[in-house]
Amino acid sequence: MKVAIIMGSDSDLNVMKTAIDMLKNFGVGVEVIIASAHRTPQKVHDFVTGSDAKIFIAAAGMAAHLAGVVASYTTRPVIGVPINSEPFKGLDALLSTVQMPGGIPVATMAVNGAKNAALFAMEILALQDDDLAKKLIFYREKMAAEIETKNDKLKEALL
Amino acid sequence: MKVAIIMGSDSDLNVMKTAIDMLKNFGVGVEVIIASAHRTPQKVHDFVTGSDAKIFIAAAGMAAHLAGVVASYTTRPVIGVPINSEPFKGLDALLSTVQMPGGIPVATMAVNGAKNAALFAMEILALQDDDLAKKLIFYREKMAAEIETKNDKLKEALL
Amino acid sequence: MKVAIIMGSDSDLNVMKTAIDMLKNFGVGVEVIIASAHRTPQKVHDFVTGSDAKIFIAAAGMAAHLAGVVASYTTRPVIGVPINSEPFKGLDALLSTVQMPGGIPVATMAVNGAKNAALFAMEILALQDDDLAKKLIFYREKMAAEIETKNDKLKEALL
Amino acid sequence: MKVAIIMGSDSDLNVMKTAIDMLKNFGVGVEVIIASAHRTPQKVHDFVTGSDAKIFIAAAGMAAHLAGVVASYTTRPVIGVPINSEPFKGLDALLSTVQMPGGIPVATMAVNGAKNAALFAMEILALQDDDLAKKLIFYREKMAAEIETKNDKLKEALL
Amino acid sequence: MKVAIIMGSDSDLNVMKTAIDMLKNFGVGVEVIIASAHRTPQKVHDFVTGSDAKIFIAAAGMAAHLAGVVASYTTRPVIGVPINSEPFKGLDALLSTVQMPGGIPVATMAVNGAKNAALFAMEILALQDDDLAKKLIFYREKMAAEIETKNDKLKEALL
Amino acid sequence: MKVAIIMGSDSDLNVMKTAIDMLKNFGVGVEVIIASAHRTPQKVHDFVTGSDAKIFIAAAGMAAHLAGVVASYTTRPVIGVPINSEPFKGLDALLSTVQMPGGIPVATMAVNGAKNAALFAMEILALQDDDLAKKLIFYREKMAAEIETKNDKLKEALL
Amino acid sequence: MKVAIIMGSDSDLNVMKTAIDMLKNFGVGVEVIIASAHRTPQKVHDFVTGSDAKIFIAAAGMAAHLAGVVASYTTRPVIGVPINSEPFKGLDALLSTVQMPGGIPVATMAVNGAKNAALFAMEILALQDDDLAKKLIFYREKMAAEIETKNDKLKEALL
Amino acid sequence: MKVAIIMGSDSDLNVMKTAIDMLKNFGVGVEVIIASAHRTPQKVHDFVTGSDAKIFIAAAGMAAHLAGVVASYTTRPVIGVPINSEPFKGLDALLSTVQMPGGIPVATMAVNGAKNAALFAMEILALQDDDLAKKLIFYREKMAAEIETKNDKLKEALL
Repeated sequence: MKVAIIMGSDSDLNVMKTAIDMLKNFGVGVEVIIASAHRTPQKVHDFVTGSDAKIFIAAAGMAAHLAGVVASYTTRPVIGVPINSEPFKGLDALLSTVQMPGGIPVATMAVNGAKNAALFAMEILALQDDDLAKKLIFYREKMAAEIETKNDKLKEALL
Repeated sequence: MKVAIIMGSDSDLNVMKTAIDMLKNFGVGVEVIIASAHRTPQKVHDFVTGSDAKIFIAAAGMAAHLAGVVASYTTRPVIGVPINSEPFKGLDALLSTVQMPGGIPVATMAVNGAKNAALFAMEILALQDDDLAKKLIFYREKMAAEIETKNDKLKEALL
Repeated sequence: MKVAIIMGSDSDLNVMKTAIDMLKNFGVGVEVIIASAHRTPQKVHDFVTGSDAKIFIAAAGMAAHLAGVVASYTTRPVIGVPINSEPFKGLDALLSTVQMPGGIPVATMAVNGAKNAALFAMEILALQDDDLAKKLIFYREKMAAEIETKNDKLKEALL
Repeated sequence: MKVAIIMGSDSDLNVMKTAIDMLKNFGVGVEVIIASAHRTPQKVHDFVTGSDAKIFIAAAGMAAHLAGVVASYTTRPVIGVPINSEPFKGLDALLSTVQMPGGIPVATMAVNGAKNAALFAMEILALQDDDLAKKLIFYREKMAAEIETKNDKLKEALL
Repeated sequence: MKVAIIMGSDSDLNVMKTAIDMLKNFGVGVEVIIASAHRTPQKVHDFVTGSDAKIFIAAAGMAAHLAGVVASYTTRPVIGVPINSEPFKGLDALLSTVQMPGGIPVATMAVNGAKNAALFAMEILALQDDDLAKKLIFYREKMAAEIETKNDKLKEALL
Repeated sequence: MKVAIIMGSDSDLNVMKTAIDMLKNFGVGVEVIIASAHRTPQKVHDFVTGSDAKIFIAAAGMAAHLAGVVASYTTRPVIGVPINSEPFKGLDALLSTVQMPGGIPVATMAVNGAKNAALFAMEILALQDDDLAKKLIFYREKMAAEIETKNDKLKEALL
Repeated sequence: MKVAIIMGSDSDLNVMKTAIDMLKNFGVGVEVIIASAHRTPQKVHDFVTGSDAKIFIAAAGMAAHLAGVVASYTTRPVIGVPINSEPFKGLDALLSTVQMPGGIPVATMAVNGAKNAALFAMEILALQDDDLAKKLIFYREKMAAEIETKNDKLKEALL
Repeated sequence: MKVAIIMGSDSDLNVMKTAIDMLKNFGVGVEVIIASAHRTPQKVHDFVTGSDAKIFIAAAGMAAHLAGVVASYTTRPVIGVPINSEPFKGLDALLSTVQMPGGIPVATMAVNGAKNAALFAMEILALQDDDLAKKLIFYREKMAAEIETKNDKLKEALL
């Protein structure tokens, strides 16, 4: 049960590092590859059709075709992460990723939403992995507890 | 292995009908409910926390909070479908659905992307259902064949 | 006669500090809480339904569902402050806050409009508090006087 | 306890009719006036400074200055309704209404959000009118019930 | 010296018909094919790598990846025509087509700019075809003359 | 023959300084005032109706109502300069300034277009001032010469 | 004292007719010409440099270069009217017209703002024509009176 | 076989340097000129009509008319590079460049897409220059190899 992360450029690693770390921390197998829909189209094709990953996370900026191209080669779930880049701040990447035509779905996250891409991939895997499901619930509880702590600190600060 | 479809308004049925039909045609169990994040918040809570659906598809327009609210109650996969409505043509719904903060993922489809929501839900289910996986591959082949047919007709028409 | 300020994240405090200070300076009771529509949905519910505040100010960024979720639990006035965040500069938060469906109003301020949220809350309270009404009029006169002073300085500088 | 509705043009009546009817149905006094921030600036001034309304609802399209101009003359609550008009579909009116500078708040509703403007005005008035407060709660319950009815019909239709 | 026109869907023919007719009228060979970057990726690959066309015109709507995908397979000139479709009126297609990363150029025309795609293709071919170059100059003169005729009619109508 | 420059805030002086200097350098009388459409509405009214300026230049950011409000009080030419401010980079100010309803024109310049506001005001005044007209032509010639000089430098640098 | 109206296409006449009629009704001389910045660049040059008009109104859609090109040939005032056209609803024309670089001003009106273009041209001419100045004031009074009449009708209708 | 690069301002050189260098490195003749569509319109006309360049690359920001103006004077291919500038981040330049009316094509690159402008110009020239065609294919292979190298480094870093 492995998740593959494909990035269109090594500059996307800054953003996607969060997703890689998160999957590892939850004990999920990750395979990471840099492959460009435009500069190495054959590599994208060969990787996707040859990979035994259950889920693909594709991150790209600007005219972000990567997630769509990955989705064109597989019926396994593809998650798209639009990357924020100048000058359009990821609006180009968001529309290029989310506005897929009927028939070839890409599950789009927020611009730079690497963390949620990892979490969503694990929500899928957790459907057949009770341990992972428990970890996800525990993670939510931890997030809630952190907010509670911050709230307590704020209360003190405002006294 | 059931998919739940939640719509914020009965007017969203025009768009979501495609998803309901598609899931049924592929033999996947569907539960459909109209529940509004704002007008019936308790109902959304009770439905999500009480449902045994594996996956939730949430469709809403304007300030489309529904998918995010559903995702706040569950760690099962939530797919968001922003609905096109006047005057902002679904841009408000898209941003309200996709720009989720880190921690609570929503897998966002294109505006009015009901068909892809159903397909993506099935891509998830197919990870543990080989029959469904085959149907999805067959569906892609059928799409490709239809394009081939259209291409042939075009060729004739242009002669 | 208390105003409650709910923030989706402690990072919103930078912006909302202005509103807290302003309400305090005008002698209005303030209750401040960090609670996330997505990460602590139950807490938002419990706080809103349990609070005796007359007015709620809700601040959130990105897919800013907080004000809408607060409004779904109460018929008391809810004021929404969209928070500016990268990459969409608050456009996502603005549309997520202001484009509420008919039936559940949220009074939306400018992006990062914390000061006006506080002033608007006090304009509401002043309808039944003559002292507060006078303070608001005095505040406007002070603003006008400050502009006059700046104008005088400019005149001198340009001589 | 009266609400004043100011419209920049008689063509805005199509949209604002909903607000007028709603306030009347809830038994709230309404005063309606057509006055343009640009074509009849003196009239706007005289009306706002002379009116005994508790709350002003201002509706305008395009470069919608009306709500801001009304707010410049009073410290009573001003609710702005951006009107959808060609070619920019109300985006111009929304930004012109909501992006008020610090000091002069305008509570902005969704584009064409006449219904919510009326409801929000009544949420303010209900702070000192228990009967009105009850009507607002009843209205919400009715909305929820209507959704329930629609849901039941949908369930039947899908059988 | 042939131009290939690739359309992502047969619905794009309404727009692209103009380009086909124009090229034929100017005596330029045209090959037309329907092939989808997402639904028939292999066909796009095979067509582009197998074709002897000098120039490719690729037309697609929504997340318009077609021109970029075609460009990834060839160093011959690729012209992209973003197609106008609901709800985003071609803004998604424009950004998906024009915002190509460095290394893989796509020459982008206006949304629905089929006529200019044909003309631009011929401007390229005319660099080595003097007859075609003369036809293009003649076409411009004809356009100018038509404007002159319209101007004369207007002058009369305004008398 | 005087030009009046009205700024909504003293922070706009950074931008408008260019216009003030330019008018002075061309020998045109300038009157500068800080007055806010929202914070000092009466002052705007009194200044505009009392001024003997031939032309008004109004600069404001965000919901930039100033130019429209000035135009509502006079039939003399009003030039609007939308000011760039966070977070919407002047798009709010541009739409608030340019999308004036029929009947009350505002001549809108580019965002932060202070220089062009001064030049346009002088183009108007030059219709009845031959000396000023000559200065404007000379200014254009100087601009062209500057570009020529830069071009020469570039040529050298590229050798 | 003549105003020249240049339109990029005869299809712009639908919108600009209002400006032509208005100028004629106010007794101002009008010269109308169809000339395209792109299709008949020489004609635009010859017309502008040869015309004795005091003011130019230039109307164009899409990449609306016409007003800028006219302004490049003259230091007389140029008023730009961005024309609404599919698919971008005049946003392209607005930005192409208003975002002029420093040095070459274009006074931009609202999208399709033909009426205001005519009024603004007359506001300029009225600086040296007292009769015209009086007509403009009278026109404003008439507009205000019409609003008053509409207001009276509304009051009756609401009784 | 020469390519001409026209820039509206010397500040565009920062961006366009890449294109100049690239063409030189590939052994293609380049002629570079600073000429403004608005400030030196005659120079643009004279340069374009007098040049023996095969292809024109025009770079400009804001209301970027330069590429369109160049295209109005020639039927040789014109490539437009919208330049990113404050405050609209090149959206104004993109729309001003790409939304050309039918009849006068401009091949538009991404905002600041200087590298792709050079590559696209060479793709055109390579249609009649086999050496250049080989260099372009080699360049693509080099890009692919670089990605492979980065991928290898990433793999090591992640071990």
